[in-house]
Amino acid sequence: MTDTHNRSGVSPPTSQVLTPTYEGDFVLSEPLPLECGRTLACPTLHYAVYGRLNAARDNAVLVCHALSGSALVGSWWPEIFTPGAVLSLEHDFVICINMLGSCYGSTGPGSVNPETGESYGPDFPLVSIRDNIRAQAQLLDSLGIRRLRLVLGGSIGGMQAIEWTMLYPERVERALVIGVAPLGAMGLALNHLQRQAIQHDPEWEGGRYLPQKPPRSGLALARQIAMISYKSAPLFEERFGRNPNRNGEDPWRLDGTGSGLVGGRFDIAGYLDHQGQRFIDRFDANAYLAILRTMDTWDPLRGYASPAEAYGRIRAHLVFVGISSDWLFPADTVRRFAEEISAAGAQIDYREMTSDHGHDAFLAEQVELVRLLQ
Amino acid sequence: MTDTHNRSGVSPPTSQVLTPTYEGDFVLSEPLPLECGRTLACPTLHYAVYGRLNAARDNAVLVCHALSGSALVGSWWPEIFTPGAVLSLEHDFVICINMLGSCYGSTGPGSVNPETGESYGPDFPLVSIRDNIRAQAQLLDSLGIRRLRLVLGGSIGGMQAIEWTMLYPERVERALVIGVAPLGAMGLALNHLQRQAIQHDPEWEGGRYLPQKPPRSGLALARQIAMISYKSAPLFEERFGRNPNRNGEDPWRLDGTGSGLVGGRFDIAGYLDHQGQRFIDRFDANAYLAILRTMDTWDPLRGYASPAEAYGRIRAHLVFVGISSDWLFPADTVRRFAEEISAAGAQIDYREMTSDHGHDAFLAEQVELVRLLQ
Repeated sequence: MTDTHNRSGVSPPTSQVLTPTYEGDFVLSEPLPLECGRTLACPTLHYAVYGRLNAARDNAVLVCHALSGSALVGSWWPEIFTPGAVLSLEHDFVICINMLGSCYGSTGPGSVNPETGESYGPDFPLVSIRDNIRAQAQLLDSLGIRRLRLVLGGSIGGMQAIEWTMLYPERVERALVIGVAPLGAMGLALNHLQRQAIQHDPEWEGGRYLPQKPPRSGLALARQIAMISYKSAPLFEERFGRNPNRNGEDPWRLDGTGSGLVGGRFDIAGYLDHQGQRFIDRFDANAYLAILRTMDTWDPLRGYASPAEAYGRIRAHLVFVGISSDWLFPADTVRRFAEEISAAGAQIDYREMTSDHGHDAFLAEQVELVRLLQ
Repeated sequence: MTDTHNRSGVSPPTSQVLTPTYEGDFVLSEPLPLECGRTLACPTLHYAVYGRLNAARDNAVLVCHALSGSALVGSWWPEIFTPGAVLSLEHDFVICINMLGSCYGSTGPGSVNPETGESYGPDFPLVSIRDNIRAQAQLLDSLGIRRLRLVLGGSIGGMQAIEWTMLYPERVERALVIGVAPLGAMGLALNHLQRQAIQHDPEWEGGRYLPQKPPRSGLALARQIAMISYKSAPLFEERFGRNPNRNGEDPWRLDGTGSGLVGGRFDIAGYLDHQGQRFIDRFDANAYLAILRTMDTWDPLRGYASPAEAYGRIRAHLVFVGISSDWLFPADTVRRFAEEISAAGAQIDYREMTSDHGHDAFLAEQVELVRLLQ
């Protein structure tokens, strides 16, 4: 945390950002039946691959992204590709697939609903984690990949990795699950706050906003609420403390923003505002709401009679990583979740990443993550 | 936490709500100079008293309320009056004064500015904790009270109690400070989120909303953001977990609120919505913003050369209480704050309240608080 002027809150990667071997779309040949009871008409999965599939087709690795991520894992998680780290561009064929509901190429609320000829908008159905995995499996089938050497992800990406080991036990050799467990009441509360921030924005228009007139202030506030849950109080204290905003604003002045009771900002407020502004330039409000719901509804036990039946299906070797300062998915919650799966007979390792970056550490401190995993 | 159907999140008091001996207004005879450089034209302090002032006038106790509290301490903190508890209606003369900026009787944004003939609204000046204490001292002078047997409060009330011991060392015998320290970066972040929730509401109108048309949804969201910081994850987990909303909503249904991507709520969401709705019926948005700023700017060292100089002024015996599950003002932060004051030579006791109610425990678990203080 020496880069106190780095407003991104993410440590700059020490390696080059990687360009994919291939980036493109896969369109499902049939409608996708969804857990919610609806179907999604032949959705598109946007994906990127890195490295080459070997002749035996046994070197495939699937990386699952988190809420606002994209298929370009080489851009947002470059450190795991560094020689000797988690993945090898020389030996692995790395696939990353954009989640359904997202705004980075896969079918989502911004896509045209073939049944209406108009974009789904707020009518986009609830696509669960399992629905995503079933769609991803069809993409892997199309690539002739029967088995994954490894499936990995943090946060919602970890939810996907676990579902892969449960839905297709025979297709996954190992899984790496970082900073995740079924969302608890506090996590559900934080998502509820973010939903309201977007939906209270008059520009939201019940989800039928025009692309050129999105609910920017609502999405920015949602991102700011998320940011406090991604980081930790100790990190904020060390980086920002009670400092006035670095642009020279004075918290004792009330005319800082032209709104009498607002005044100059503290540095932490300037940081959060900056994070909100950066986010609205890259993400869509309806997509955000869609993936929040995907995250909210994930329950690995849903439809199974018991944890033993559910987790007993798992054949993969799972490595769980908890993050010491994560309060969205606390390390002890991740550890207990791993123990619950282990109790069903699955092979489990649990490791704890010591970091004050909070939940965000798996992205913000990639070098430390790689060191932990070596 | 057996009352899982108690949406208030506050344990019902076991004693009667007390009616004050007297409730009324005190108008300062002169304009109040403010730390921010402005002055407040002869402000009114609304206050309530309980019990009787004795002939020696040495049985006065001042209770300072928190953000959304009122002068009616007998209504919101009844347990501390139970026989043998903290205060005695038989022996003590208890005073509670509504904070400046509030909407419960003291001068605030909703009051008429004598200089303009219109309500202050967003032009209400920043009134600091010290400004409040200086005004409160004039009220005590008018009652012929030179010395307080005890000054006590939780959260912002504790900020006021500490400033009393620093501004008027000779006037305070003891102070009880619960769940507070100078607001850290995470606390400042949470207040910044709440400010935006209100100011993004189109009904806010830059603070010039009509009393009959306030920014209700924004204030409700601000309250919900505050609620997650007042409570704790373990409490939410025990009370709500991942249960669907108790009214029968289904989180898997997306038409729960007529907004496609919203869907049925989880129980924690129903609880937060309920808290937000209850709050907008009793509090004013501009008053909320004003007191957030009073809270944000409190720095007990401001204007002093050193902690030794600042805290060395204190003559009172201070008792600090930290709350084990408080993450807005963490117990270890409260303890370190108490130690810093102790290092300057003040008499300090620190006690820790074990509760999973979070910051709110001093209001939600009054019986346990009283037990700790006995």
